[in-house]
Amino acid sequence: MIISMRPHATREEIDHVCERIREFGYKVHSIEGEERVVIGVVGIGDVTACLESLEATPGVERAMRISAPYKFVSKEFKKERTQVRVDGHEIGGEEFIVMAGPCSVESEQQIMETAEGVRKAGARILRGGAFKPRTSPYDFQGMELEGLKLLRKAKEATGLAIITEVMSDRDVELVAEYADIMQVGARNMQNFALLKSLGKCGRPILLKRGMSSTIKELLMSAEYLVAHGNSNVLLCERGIRTFETATRNTCDIAAVPVLNEMTHLPVILDPSHATGKRSLVPAVARAGVAIGADGMIVEVHPNPEKAVSDGAQSLTLDQFRNMMTQLKPYFDLWKQARVAELAAAGV
Amino acid sequence: MIISMRPHATREEIDHVCERIREFGYKVHSIEGEERVVIGVVGIGDVTACLESLEATPGVERAMRISAPYKFVSKEFKKERTQVRVDGHEIGGEEFIVMAGPCSVESEQQIMETAEGVRKAGARILRGGAFKPRTSPYDFQGMELEGLKLLRKAKEATGLAIITEVMSDRDVELVAEYADIMQVGARNMQNFALLKSLGKCGRPILLKRGMSSTIKELLMSAEYLVAHGNSNVLLCERGIRTFETATRNTCDIAAVPVLNEMTHLPVILDPSHATGKRSLVPAVARAGVAIGADGMIVEVHPNPEKAVSDGAQSLTLDQFRNMMTQLKPYFDLWKQARVAELAAAGV
Amino acid sequence: MIISMRPHATREEIDHVCERIREFGYKVHSIEGEERVVIGVVGIGDVTACLESLEATPGVERAMRISAPYKFVSKEFKKERTQVRVDGHEIGGEEFIVMAGPCSVESEQQIMETAEGVRKAGARILRGGAFKPRTSPYDFQGMELEGLKLLRKAKEATGLAIITEVMSDRDVELVAEYADIMQVGARNMQNFALLKSLGKCGRPILLKRGMSSTIKELLMSAEYLVAHGNSNVLLCERGIRTFETATRNTCDIAAVPVLNEMTHLPVILDPSHATGKRSLVPAVARAGVAIGADGMIVEVHPNPEKAVSDGAQSLTLDQFRNMMTQLKPYFDLWKQARVAELAAAGV
Amino acid sequence: MIISMRPHATREEIDHVCERIREFGYKVHSIEGEERVVIGVVGIGDVTACLESLEATPGVERAMRISAPYKFVSKEFKKERTQVRVDGHEIGGEEFIVMAGPCSVESEQQIMETAEGVRKAGARILRGGAFKPRTSPYDFQGMELEGLKLLRKAKEATGLAIITEVMSDRDVELVAEYADIMQVGARNMQNFALLKSLGKCGRPILLKRGMSSTIKELLMSAEYLVAHGNSNVLLCERGIRTFETATRNTCDIAAVPVLNEMTHLPVILDPSHATGKRSLVPAVARAGVAIGADGMIVEVHPNPEKAVSDGAQSLTLDQFRNMMTQLKPYFDLWKQARVAELAAAGV
Repeated sequence: MIISMRPHATREEIDHVCERIREFGYKVHSIEGEERVVIGVVGIGDVTACLESLEATPGVERAMRISAPYKFVSKEFKKERTQVRVDGHEIGGEEFIVMAGPCSVESEQQIMETAEGVRKAGARILRGGAFKPRTSPYDFQGMELEGLKLLRKAKEATGLAIITEVMSDRDVELVAEYADIMQVGARNMQNFALLKSLGKCGRPILLKRGMSSTIKELLMSAEYLVAHGNSNVLLCERGIRTFETATRNTCDIAAVPVLNEMTHLPVILDPSHATGKRSLVPAVARAGVAIGADGMIVEVHPNPEKAVSDGAQSLTLDQFRNMMTQLKPYFDLWKQARVAELAAAGV
Repeated sequence: MIISMRPHATREEIDHVCERIREFGYKVHSIEGEERVVIGVVGIGDVTACLESLEATPGVERAMRISAPYKFVSKEFKKERTQVRVDGHEIGGEEFIVMAGPCSVESEQQIMETAEGVRKAGARILRGGAFKPRTSPYDFQGMELEGLKLLRKAKEATGLAIITEVMSDRDVELVAEYADIMQVGARNMQNFALLKSLGKCGRPILLKRGMSSTIKELLMSAEYLVAHGNSNVLLCERGIRTFETATRNTCDIAAVPVLNEMTHLPVILDPSHATGKRSLVPAVARAGVAIGADGMIVEVHPNPEKAVSDGAQSLTLDQFRNMMTQLKPYFDLWKQARVAELAAAGV
Repeated sequence: MIISMRPHATREEIDHVCERIREFGYKVHSIEGEERVVIGVVGIGDVTACLESLEATPGVERAMRISAPYKFVSKEFKKERTQVRVDGHEIGGEEFIVMAGPCSVESEQQIMETAEGVRKAGARILRGGAFKPRTSPYDFQGMELEGLKLLRKAKEATGLAIITEVMSDRDVELVAEYADIMQVGARNMQNFALLKSLGKCGRPILLKRGMSSTIKELLMSAEYLVAHGNSNVLLCERGIRTFETATRNTCDIAAVPVLNEMTHLPVILDPSHATGKRSLVPAVARAGVAIGADGMIVEVHPNPEKAVSDGAQSLTLDQFRNMMTQLKPYFDLWKQARVAELAAAGV
Repeated sequence: MIISMRPHATREEIDHVCERIREFGYKVHSIEGEERVVIGVVGIGDVTACLESLEATPGVERAMRISAPYKFVSKEFKKERTQVRVDGHEIGGEEFIVMAGPCSVESEQQIMETAEGVRKAGARILRGGAFKPRTSPYDFQGMELEGLKLLRKAKEATGLAIITEVMSDRDVELVAEYADIMQVGARNMQNFALLKSLGKCGRPILLKRGMSSTIKELLMSAEYLVAHGNSNVLLCERGIRTFETATRNTCDIAAVPVLNEMTHLPVILDPSHATGKRSLVPAVARAGVAIGADGMIVEVHPNPEKAVSDGAQSLTLDQFRNMMTQLKPYFDLWKQARVAELAAAGV
C-alpha cells in the first residue's frame, strides 16, 4: 500500500500516519518528495482495514492498494487453469463448452424440444430458468419447483447437464438438488448472503458479472465463493451497462484475456445478454471462441415470439444449429491452441 | 405501445404482427409512412408480455413502450405526496428529515456517543449497519444481532428512530423487530426475493438506487414493494457509477426533481456515498436541501480514522454539528416552499 | 511517481527500471515488499515522459502518478480564487453571475427581445450561438457573422456582455472581435488546435467540460489555455454522459466542490444542458447556487417551440423571470458566504 | 416520428401539436389510447426541426424519431459494401487490411525500421502521427511537417500507403499532400469544422469513434463527410469510455456487426487503443478478425519503452510478426466467408 500525503501536510500528520501503520503491524518506508511525502506500507496479509483507516486520517490525500485484495482466485495463488468437472465434461479443459436453452422453462414440450435440439447441434449443458429475476413485479416469475422438475426430465431424456439460476439463499438447497451448475445472475453478483450459502452447496457456480461491476469486483465475489468453501467457479462476461443503446449491454470482450491474466478460473461468454439481439449473437459468439473464452451460454427457444421472456435475443433451433456449424472451424483452432498451451504447461 | 417495422418488412410480416397484437387483446392502429409501417397498440393493462413477444417477431425493428411499466408508484396513480410516518415524524411532510450515524455499529460506546451527538445537532433518525454488505469476504461483516440490540439501546436512550440495513430475505423478520425503517442497499435494489419479503414486513423501507440502475428501474423495484403490500417506501439517490473517479460515485442530483415529476414517494439524498469524501458532504447536502429532497442520510462517526468501514466519507460529530448549523437557513427556505406547496394542494 | 513491479519481476528488470529513472534525472527509492518491489521516483518537473516510458518497460505492472499533471490551474500554484473581469463584472467575486439567452441567434427580433427580457430579470451576460455545433449536417448551422453582428446590436441596446461559441481555430480572431467571453463547447474541450489559438486571443474563455471528460481532463484543457497565455478561464459543468436517459445528461453537481478543492478558477453551472428539460432547470439552478458555483449559464427563448435548436430545454422569458425571483434568497445566502470567505482570506 | 402526449394533455394542446405538424408539411395520424393520445407524423425528408419544435411544445411528453437521421451512410440508401481504394488495396473488399506503425513519428530511423518490419509481416498501410493530440500541453506534440516528410520517405522505401492524423481544418490541405488516408481522432469526431473541410479533401478518411459517442453519432459524423462530398469513409471502433479501468477503454466489439447492419461503410478495429495494454492486443485482434471487421490499425514500435507516446500499448516488431503469424488461419476463414458473401451478393 502507498499513502500519498497532501502537499502541505504537517510533520505531526505525517508522524501520526506512520504510527497508525505500525499499530496495524506493518513497516513504514517514507519517501520525501519535492512537493509531498509518500509513505510505502510493507507487510503481509490483508491491508484493507489499514487502508480504510488511513483514508480517513487527516493529512492523507490518497491511499493506494498495490497488492490485489483477492487471493485464492488469483493467478499468483495458482498458475494452472482450474478445470471444473460437470457431469463428465471439463470446463477450462480441452473442449469449448456450449450451454444453451431457453431463458425460462415454460412447459414440458418447450424444454424437451429445446434440449433435444441443442444437444444434437453440439451443446453439452442445458440452460433454463425456473426462478426468474424480472424487473417488473407483473412479469412471469418462473415455474419454480415445477420448472426444476422439467429440467430434470430433460436431463434424463438427453443426458445434458443442467444449469439454472438461484435467486435467494433460501432456495440454495432446493436448486442444488436439480442443478449441475448453479447460476448467479448479474443482479445478484454482490448478494453476499447468497454467495455465502453457495460456498457450501457442493455444486459448481456460474457467476455472472454485475452489469456495472468491475472485473476486480467480479473476482472479489468469486473470492467469497472460494473463501466459503467452493472453488468450482465459472466467471461469466455478459455485457456491461454503458451509454450505448444500440445493444442491450456492451460486451466487454477484452474482459476474457484480462481475466486470463488475473485468474485461473474458467471464463464463459454470454453473447445473448451481451447484445440483446438475435442477429448479433453468432458474430459475437465467433469473437468469443477466437479470443479464448472457455465456453459460452446462449439463449435458444423453439419459438422466440412465443417466449415469455428474452425472445428478442433467443435463437431459433435452426439458427442455433447454423451457428454451431459455422463455428466448427473456430472450435478447431481453439482446441489446437488450448492443447498446445496445456502441453507447454506440462499438464 | 408503438411497433416500428423494418423498412422492407413484407405484407405478411405486417399482418402477422397485427394478428399477434389482437391475440393479446389490444387494438391495432396502423400508420403507413413513406419508408416503413408503424403500428400503434391500444388497450388497457400491462403490455410487457406483448412487447417482448413482438420484439422477437420477424419484420419488427423496435417495440417502444409509451405508458410507464409501473402503476402504484406513479404520479398518475396518486397526485399528492406520500407522507411516511416514522415514530412521530412525517417523511414527505413539512420537515426535512435528517438521518445520521455510523456506517457500522461497532460498539456500545461508539453508537451511544454518536446517537447522542447527532440528536443534539438535529437528526431525527439514527443510522447504523448491523449486517454489512462488503466487497471483500475478509472485511468486517457486521455485528449482526448484537448490533441490532445496541441500536435498540441507543433508541431507548435518545428517542431517535432507527434505520438499518437488511441483506437477505432470511433476516427480514429479525431486523423488523429492531428497525423503524428497513434499508435496502444499492447492491440489493434488484434482489427481488428480498423485495417480496419486505412487501409484507410492516415497516417503512428506504430503497437505495442501484449504482447502475436507471430511475425507471428504481421505480420498478419500488413497485415490487407496493405490489407486495408495502406502500411506505422512501427512495434514495446515493450516486451512480460513471467514468469519473474524482468522487466515489456521481451524485445524480437531478434525479430528485425527476422523481418528483414521476412519483409521489419521498426522496432521500445520501451525500456520503454519493461523494465518498468527507470534505464534499456539506456542499452536496446543501444542494440536496435546495433542490427539494425530503431528507438526507449522512454518515457520522466519533472517530472516523478508527471506523471499521467508510471512514473517509464519515463526518466527525463536530463536522456534523457545523454542517447542521450552516444548513439552518436552507432548511428554512425549504420549509417555506413546502408549506406553500402543500397549502396550494389543499392538504 | 510510484512504480509497482510485477510479483515475479527479475532482478535485471528491477535494475533496468531504476536505471531508466535515473536517465530521466530522477532519484530512486526502492521498497522491497513481501510480494513485489515498489519504486518511488522523486524529482522536479513533469514526469509524464518517464511515466509513459516505464509503463512500457518489461517487469512493470503499473506506473502511478502522485503529483497532478497540471500546474498553473492548480490550487497549489495559486490559493486565492481567480476573478475574471468581464465588462465591469467579476466572475469569481462577490456576485453570482447569470448568463442567459437563446441556444442560437435566429433573428434580430428574437435576440433583442431575449436580451431585454433577461437583463430586466437580472442576467449580466447574454448568451447566443452564431456558430452551432450540430450532430446532423442537415440541421441549422448558425447565422455566423450575421449572428455575431446581432449580438453586438443586443449588447449596444442593453449593456449586457456577450458570450458566444467558437468552433474552429480559423474563427478565433473573428469571434474575438464580437465576444466578451469565448465559449468552447463540450465537443471541442479536447480540440487542442482550438485551445492553442484561444491561448492568445485576449478574451476570457468559458471552457465546457466534455461529455465524457473527467475533471482532471477538464483541468488539463484549462492548463492548455493558461500555458498558451490566457489565464482568464471559466470552467463549466454541463452534465456528463452516463447510462441514465431520464435526463439529457447527468449533472455532476459534486464537480463544483471538487473543482473548488483542486483549482482557483471560477466554476459555472449549465442547468439547461445538464438536464435537457425545461421543467428541471429551476431546481438544478437552485442546487447550483447552494453548492457554491460562481455563476450559471441558462437557455432562454421568447418562444421555445419556434426555436431552431434546444427548444425543449429553453425557459420562456416568464419562466426565467420567475426562476430568478425564486432564486433571490439563495443568491443572498450565497453572497453572505462568499463575502465571509473572501474576508477570511484577507482579500 | 411519434409524438406521445402527456396523460392529461388538453384538447387545445393536442390540436396545437397537430397544427404544428401540418405547418411543417407532414401528415397527422392520431391514436387515442386509454391513458393518452399518441400522434404519428408521416412525411418525407428530415424531421429534426419538427421534432425539436414539438419537444418544446406544451402537452408533449416525448417526441420519438422512427427513421434514422442519416441517409447516405445507411444500408437503406446503398446495400452493397462500400470498397475504399487506397493505393491499389481495397478496404471493404476481399482482403482484411492491416495498418500498423508507431503512435508518433519520432525519427527517420524509427519510422524506416518500423515500416520495413510491418511490411514484411503483412501490413499494407503504415500509421504514424505527425500531429499529436495530447492531453497535456507539456507532452510531445508531434514532428508536424517534418514527420509528414519522413512518412513519405517510408512510403517511397517500402511501398506502404500512409495513414496519419489531421487535427485542425487549417492543416487539411497540408496533410492531404502526404497522406493516403486522413485520420480523424476520437477527440475530433464531432469537430464539425474539421469534418466539413475533410469533405472536400479528396482523400479517404478513417473516422475514429469518439470515446463517449454512440454508434448513431458516429454515423452522423460520417454523414457530414459524405454530405460535404467525400464518400470514402472508414469507421473505426477504438474502445469507449466506461466505468471499467482494467483496460484503457472498453472495446465495444459488437459495434462491428451492429455497424454492418446499419451501414455499407467498412469498419476498422483498433485493438491498441481499445485495450491500452500490449499483452491484450493479439487476443482482441483475433476477435476483430473473427467478428468480421474489414481491417485493423495497430500500434507497433521498435522499442516501446523509448516511445514518446503510447509505449504501453505498442507491440514490438517481433510481437507484431508473431501476432500476424498466429492470425493467419483466422485471415483465411475471414476471406472464405467474405468471398462467399460477395459472390452471393452478385458482386
